[in-house]
Parts: sequence; C-alpha cells; structure tokens
Amino acid sequence: MERENKIPKITLVGAGPGDPELLTLKGLKALQSADVVLYDALVGEELLNFVPAHATKVYVGKRSGEHSYSQDAVNRLMVDYALNFEHVVRLKGGDPFVFGRGYEELAYATKQGIKVQVIPGISSAIGVPGLQQIPVTHRGLSESFWVITGTTASGEVSQDIYHAALSNATVVILMGLKKLPEIVAIFKQAAKEDLPVAIIEKGSTNAEKVIVGNVATIVEKSKTNTVGAPAILVFGEVVSLHANYAAIIQSYVSVTGE
Amino acid sequence: MERENKIPKITLVGAGPGDPELLTLKGLKALQSADVVLYDALVGEELLNFVPAHATKVYVGKRSGEHSYSQDAVNRLMVDYALNFEHVVRLKGGDPFVFGRGYEELAYATKQGIKVQVIPGISSAIGVPGLQQIPVTHRGLSESFWVITGTTASGEVSQDIYHAALSNATVVILMGLKKLPEIVAIFKQAAKEDLPVAIIEKGSTNAEKVIVGNVATIVEKSKTNTVGAPAILVFGEVVSLHANYAAIIQSYVSVTGE
Repeated sequence: MERENKIPKITLVGAGPGDPELLTLKGLKALQSADVVLYDALVGEELLNFVPAHATKVYVGKRSGEHSYSQDAVNRLMVDYALNFEHVVRLKGGDPFVFGRGYEELAYATKQGIKVQVIPGISSAIGVPGLQQIPVTHRGLSESFWVITGTTASGEVSQDIYHAALSNATVVILMGLKKLPEIVAIFKQAAKEDLPVAIIEKGSTNAEKVIVGNVATIVEKSKTNTVGAPAILVFGEVVSLHANYAAIIQSYVSVTGE
Repeated sequence: MERENKIPKITLVGAGPGDPELLTLKGLKALQSADVVLYDALVGEELLNFVPAHATKVYVGKRSGEHSYSQDAVNRLMVDYALNFEHVVRLKGGDPFVFGRGYEELAYATKQGIKVQVIPGISSAIGVPGLQQIPVTHRGLSESFWVITGTTASGEVSQDIYHAALSNATVVILMGLKKLPEIVAIFKQAAKEDLPVAIIEKGSTNAEKVIVGNVATIVEKSKTNTVGAPAILVFGEVVSLHANYAAIIQSYVSVTGE
C-alpha cells in the first residue's frame, strides 16, 4: 500500500573531480533526500556521509580488474530501485554528461516513464587544471578549449585528437594516460614539439600529482615520475603559466647560460 | 596594530551559472569566511546572503551601458582590500578560468605577494546544456566538445570558430549571441545547414529560455522568439536529443506526411 504513494524519481548528480567539497549545494540536497545512491569509482566516498542512514548505497563503479556492472545492468538497477524505493541518486564522477554515459542512463529511465533531474558537477576537464592554477583560457594564449576522451567506445584514439592537435585550442584529454605515447605522436606530427603539456593525476585529492613538460619530453617524464590513472592531459600554451614550467625554463637557462 | 596579524589572502571562487545552489561546498565556506567580496554581474546575488554581516560587498561587474571598473581597477581593488581586510573572495560567474579573465587577477595578486586560492565553479558551457538535458558528449554523437568565446579581446569572431565548424566536436560558444548571424554564416560555409543548434538564455535561473533549431533556421527563430544575453550557443548533433528538437521533427513529419 505504502508503495502506491511513492513517486519514483532519479537525480543524476555530478560529484566533481574527487574533493568532496567540490560537490554543489544542490547535489548535497539531493544526497540528503536519497533513498538509494548508486555511485561510481571516481566519486569521493566521503560524500556517502551525507546520505541518510536508511538509504541503500550501491557501488556500481568500474575499476580495472574488478567485476563490475555493465551499463545495461546499471540502467536497470537504477530504475528498479526508483520503482521500489522512490528517490535514487545516481552519483557520477565529474559532470554527468562529460564522458560519463550519463545520457544513456537518463534516456533509459525517461523511457521507463521515470522523471530524471540533472545536477551538473565540476568537470575535471576545467576544475583540475584550475586547481593547479592552469587556466583553460587566458587572453593572448587561448580563446578556446577542446575536451576529448582518450578512450573511445571502439578502443581507438578519437579522430578528434588529430584535428585538435592542429588547432589553437587548449586541448584537455580525459582517460588518455594509457594512450599517452600515441597521443603525443599525433601532436609531434602536427609539429607541436615545443607545446607545453601537463599530466595531472588524481586532481583535487590529497594524492594529487602533476608533471609538466612539453610534447617532446612528456613521455620520458611520465616514466621517470610514475603517474597513474585517473589523470588528465592538458596540451596548450596555458600550461606555460604553471609554476613548475617556469622552473623548467629557469633550469634550461642556467644550463645553457642563455 | 591589529593589522599586523592579518595575512592577506584572495580566493577566486566560481559561482556557477546563476542558480545559487550550483555553488560548491568549498565556495560556500570561502564566502562564509570572507571579509570582502568582489562580485560580478553574472553572479546570483542570493549568494551574498552567505557572506558574514561584517563583510564588505563590492559590485565590480560589467553590464552594458553601465559605468564599470576596468580590469586594472578590479585587480588593484582586490589587492588593496586583501592588504587591509585580510580575506577577499573574488566571486566570478561560472568558472574563474573560463573566459573570466580570472588568471589576470591571479597573476596580479601573486605578483604582489598575496596568496591566491582557486575554487572551480560550474561552467555554463557544460552545466547549462546539461540542465536542459543536452549532454555535451554522448556515445555515437560526440566524442568531444569545444568551448569558444564569441567575444574576443579584439572584438572579432574567434578564428577558432572557423576551425570548430569543420570539426565533429560539440561546439559551445559563450558570449556569442550578438555575433549569431556571423557565427551561423561560418557553419553554413562549412556545409552544416542541418546541424542542430540551441540557444539557452539565463540558463539555470528562473528566467531560463531555450530555442532549438538548426544552422539554417536558428537566426530566424532567435528573432521570432526574442532572446537576450547572457546566453550560450550549442552547435552539435547532441542538440537533437532535446525534447523541443524532437517536436520540430514531429511537426515536420506531420506537415510533409513522411
């Protein structure tokens, strides 16, 4: 009987890049009214402290080597929980619509007649360079930024990267660390050897790590300073504004005596 | 005497696209500990309710036709307040580094020896389409998105738009409404007449308004449904996922009997 009064509802919430304080106030309210939370690998688990005690928390993330839910299974689970428990929060790393397959979840639930609300999150594409004081845009250096996935559905490097390497945009690549040599080769082909590059691992968390170099040096640097996923890659003149980049230039000047 | 114990500090906070609940928890904390807040035109003024009673609130925004502070004046004001009152929050619409000249403020303050912290905000480039349930990326439709300013320092349309019109990226243009005919002409030149386009005015606020069409029709539509700044433009197949776009297709089918 109780069930009949329930209005199933799903809220797609962007959790931001990792630091739980980068959740929005609206996202917080959604978590506080959740009956069920389905959360991903890239979500700061401290966020689960905001969820009411009665709520069910389900980890549906994908970490390499782990058993994980398929996208279909996540879609069905989300809808089943909404039908049975009312308010489901689908908590996704970053922003729900930046390479998170969030729209597939929204479309599936909407087709099942369930109301879906979207609450944007801080995308690591902008927020993570920003926290390192690398602006994705800056007058005189960049009038645009282009955000691309390093891991396409087919497993190939996105064709968009070839196009981006020829552009003046700041190029931010998510989930691209495993393809770094391949991606760097594309920028070399575009004669961008000197273009500054940053790799930022686990941005916004306590384990944050940054490596700065340029197209010519970054692969070697990523080997000597081991860096792991999740990481974002930033290719662009704006990377030259990073404090570590200034240090590289400084040491180069002192070696060559320029 | 009191002044000597003060450690001047500036926090650049992204306020998000307009809805005050799209501020981050970290941004809220910064506002709550502010001695001075310098805020822009695009910031939801309800956010000022979070600021302590003792704090000074200074409007430094730029609305057309208004007397306004120059960038230099804002920079100096920010530093002077920090030296005299300790914690200055520089509250900026969207994310501080997405076309907000935020890095100029950071660089100026850093050069004056003042510590600057950056707190990212929800950029309207991602969040505003997302709230309209237009995903900037979606498998099979878009592997990337390219965010460009419609208003460059020189007043010209950014050259990056010519390149973007030829790409497969979802193209998001901020501050481009006044240049709409010029921008649309660039997409026509790239043979993209059928590409879906959305204009979203005052996204995330109660005054939000959306117009959906394609490259061939959007200029006419923006005249019959008056739309004003601030607005963002979205060019890309992902716009076809918007509910109003489905309605356009439906009305087309019913007229042609296809």
